[in-house]
Amino acid sequence: MSSIFTKIIQGEIPCHKVAETEHFFAFLDIQPIVKGHTLVIPKLEIDYIFDLEDTLLADLHVFSKKIAAALKEAFPCERVSVIVAGFEVPHAHIHLIPSDTMDDLSFGNRTQPSAKSLAEIAAEVRAKLS
Amino acid sequence: MSSIFTKIIQGEIPCHKVAETEHFFAFLDIQPIVKGHTLVIPKLEIDYIFDLEDTLLADLHVFSKKIAAALKEAFPCERVSVIVAGFEVPHAHIHLIPSDTMDDLSFGNRTQPSAKSLAEIAAEVRAKLS
Repeated sequence: MSSIFTKIIQGEIPCHKVAETEHFFAFLDIQPIVKGHTLVIPKLEIDYIFDLEDTLLADLHVFSKKIAAALKEAFPCERVSVIVAGFEVPHAHIHLIPSDTMDDLSFGNRTQPSAKSLAEIAAEVRAKLS
Repeated sequence: MSSIFTKIIQGEIPCHKVAETEHFFAFLDIQPIVKGHTLVIPKLEIDYIFDLEDTLLADLHVFSKKIAAALKEAFPCERVSVIVAGFEVPHAHIHLIPSDTMDDLSFGNRTQPSAKSLAEIAAEVRAKLS
């Protein structure tokens, strides 16, 4: 069965998309721990990020760098932090988290913004990417 | 003034080294949150990881993949997680954290192993890399 992220890529499940390339996809976490919390994933459905072959792993991080730059511009912060945990969805994903302190990185801080609010945030990030 | 990590690379401050290449360096965190907690850094002293130029950023993650494989072999775990926060030392660093649950990723879990214990752990990882 396809992962929930594959269903998102294929448009079977809606998302607030930020960017897409041939191999990668970026969209907002719907339970963000901070404003702009974004997930960056390979389209290849692979569970463990370090199982990606070298080129794909490398390109995924270079793609993430572009997204991080747009996030930092849209939501000024000290830096965009990176977390790859992978205990929730078996499809490799990078959390990009605009942050000012370590406390911004706690998954205990998950929030439930409205779809309207998430749509506006995604639009702000897309505007910085274009 | 050089960062503490540059001093470690240059051997001015001792560390428990895991691996070194022309551009990268890996060593144990001396306050690990789990056994095998490792820091991977570029030798280039740059604060924010996304300020690394694309090739260096890409290669840093491919180097991290090799270290993560050795860690997973030395200390069996569900996966090696990745955190890049950067609020403590102004020299880009990737935390590689052998982990079985999200709870393993809390920086509230920092420990203070003896130098002897860290030396043994580093030797175990190096053995898996060789």
